[in-house]
Amino acid sequence: MLGCTWALSAAGPARAQPSFANDITVPAATAPAFTVKRLIGGLNRPWSVAWLPNGDLLITERPGRLLRVAKGLQAKPTTVTGLPQNIAVDGQGGLFDVAVHPHYATNQLVYFSYAEQVPAGSRTVLARAQLNGAALQNVEVVFRMQPALNSSRHYGGRIVFDGNHMVFLTLGDRGQRDSAQHPSQHAGSVIRLHDDGRIPTDNPFVGSSAAPAESFSRGSRNIQGATLHPVTGELWTHEHGPQGGDEINIIHAGKNYGWPTITYGVNYFTGTAIGQGVAKPGLEQPLHVWVPSVAPSGMAFYTGAHFPQWQGNLFVGALRGQALIRLQWQNERAVAEERLLQGQVGRIRDVRQGPDGYLYLITDAADGALLRIEPD
Amino acid sequence: MLGCTWALSAAGPARAQPSFANDITVPAATAPAFTVKRLIGGLNRPWSVAWLPNGDLLITERPGRLLRVAKGLQAKPTTVTGLPQNIAVDGQGGLFDVAVHPHYATNQLVYFSYAEQVPAGSRTVLARAQLNGAALQNVEVVFRMQPALNSSRHYGGRIVFDGNHMVFLTLGDRGQRDSAQHPSQHAGSVIRLHDDGRIPTDNPFVGSSAAPAESFSRGSRNIQGATLHPVTGELWTHEHGPQGGDEINIIHAGKNYGWPTITYGVNYFTGTAIGQGVAKPGLEQPLHVWVPSVAPSGMAFYTGAHFPQWQGNLFVGALRGQALIRLQWQNERAVAEERLLQGQVGRIRDVRQGPDGYLYLITDAADGALLRIEPD
Repeated sequence: MLGCTWALSAAGPARAQPSFANDITVPAATAPAFTVKRLIGGLNRPWSVAWLPNGDLLITERPGRLLRVAKGLQAKPTTVTGLPQNIAVDGQGGLFDVAVHPHYATNQLVYFSYAEQVPAGSRTVLARAQLNGAALQNVEVVFRMQPALNSSRHYGGRIVFDGNHMVFLTLGDRGQRDSAQHPSQHAGSVIRLHDDGRIPTDNPFVGSSAAPAESFSRGSRNIQGATLHPVTGELWTHEHGPQGGDEINIIHAGKNYGWPTITYGVNYFTGTAIGQGVAKPGLEQPLHVWVPSVAPSGMAFYTGAHFPQWQGNLFVGALRGQALIRLQWQNERAVAEERLLQGQVGRIRDVRQGPDGYLYLITDAADGALLRIEPD
Repeated sequence: MLGCTWALSAAGPARAQPSFANDITVPAATAPAFTVKRLIGGLNRPWSVAWLPNGDLLITERPGRLLRVAKGLQAKPTTVTGLPQNIAVDGQGGLFDVAVHPHYATNQLVYFSYAEQVPAGSRTVLARAQLNGAALQNVEVVFRMQPALNSSRHYGGRIVFDGNHMVFLTLGDRGQRDSAQHPSQHAGSVIRLHDDGRIPTDNPFVGSSAAPAESFSRGSRNIQGATLHPVTGELWTHEHGPQGGDEINIIHAGKNYGWPTITYGVNYFTGTAIGQGVAKPGLEQPLHVWVPSVAPSGMAFYTGAHFPQWQGNLFVGALRGQALIRLQWQNERAVAEERLLQGQVGRIRDVRQGPDGYLYLITDAADGALLRIEPD
């Protein structure tokens, strides 16, 4: 088919080649119908969900309870015993994430993060224990954020294992902005450790005075979502920024993500500026910014078979935004963004893909729930 | 259907009511198949397209040509005579927008904007003339931006008639940032005039020393897209910001949109900060921000019948972004964003809905084109 009814040429100057000569046809695309199943209700501020190799689920409740739910959900959830007694349940603090060691089948290790109560205040810690039925045994803290502070904010707390069995833990600034750039504090870091807590010798700040040796990156305000990219294996995070400053980043070794020196956000209530602007040489730019804020928590790339249209999409939970945000990427640029379930299920705290290839959501409420998204 | 397999209650504290008790079903949604028809090619840097009541099209080329194309496009476009001789075709300057008076059927008036060459440099002007066949007659400049400057950048230039036959003209900062906040300069303004150029007595800065009386709003960097909201009648614009600072705004009388005091963008190349941050009391916040930039030009709300799924969506052309951006709104918040035709048709300069209910695009190239989006 000829591409043009008319192509001018006589009157104009010499023409470059047309960028395309023929009509372009864009096929229809179907956003799938789906049903959100409310699998478990009555959860008290649930924070995270993880799966054991046998299909059982572990669910954390921030006030300090770990639940084990048998595969199939036909039996009532069981409270797992043996959590530490010194969980600081206050403000944003409490029990956070739970993650299952890649070699759980042989070592029975589960990892969990929480706010630890100490005389000086509280701090984010990473612990591990062996799970024996509904009991945690041999509980061991493998990392303690330094210093502890009298603050109940911005603990971070997501745990991610990478393909080499290194474990990442995301942290926040504990509400003290400048600490995210402090060379001897963990605040604002993503931490990278061996599974027993040893510091990897190839960590970027080993031998440096710029940041603690446990730190893999610096300068984040509060990261409550982290996951590995299914193809590149890179660590993607989102950052719960101040008003208007939520971000998505890829965490690269030794990089500084800029908080609070640079940010797209402003101070709550006053709307006044923070830091030195939105960019500065040597500080990383986010892949994506939300203005206005959505208050992200939880994230997962979808790779399952149930929703072919969603494969490779990143799903982000929104607390204040009360939505499940779907982001489609071309390389490292978001080319489509959609807010699903806007206002329909409340605040979303966690987003996971289960071993069955379904997306699971955890809602943040005193009557929180575990939800599953199924094709209709 | 019962909403939960399990609802915990015995072990936990008193529960609030669940936010929802039953499963939620979300219906499928279909993004339509469509074909992009290349209607007219060989256009030299076209900038705008408008329709006469009889269905004929007017197309501007930035180097200073106005074309008339008969309805149905079966005859070769005709060059319209009578344009002013002093169009400054340099850098970003030249012939910009064309708009048809709402009462064209009785007054034959068309309006056009261009960069006017004067001894002191150039400036954006708004002119009108009667169109008689392929001749402009009684050409009259109804507004001249003050002052003229030796700059070939950031002219703005979009023309919009509102429902009361007032005419809006968007301007830029002419590459001199601080001028967008200068109380006696038009730079950075959206101008509002009677159709004959008289200043409306209810313009917000009439009798004020804060801005010229023609100004309806202040503090924009370079607005190359403007359209009325099909329901509210409000003037929506986008702003071509610096690197990382493109915006969508609703233009309200007397408001200051903040450039260059506040911006989400940074300096090109250096990445250094501009102004005082991203927000400041008394300065307007955008509805939407693009980070990274897309370089927007042209915009239209879709209200046609051919694509029911797109009704109420805002379509924005992207120059550097080389895409047609579709934005879906809930009130004044973008809840979905999609980039169509990414890289497929090149730089998009203008986006319009034709009287036939189709979307039309103008591509910015030495071999630019008029495209129409049709259902497949």
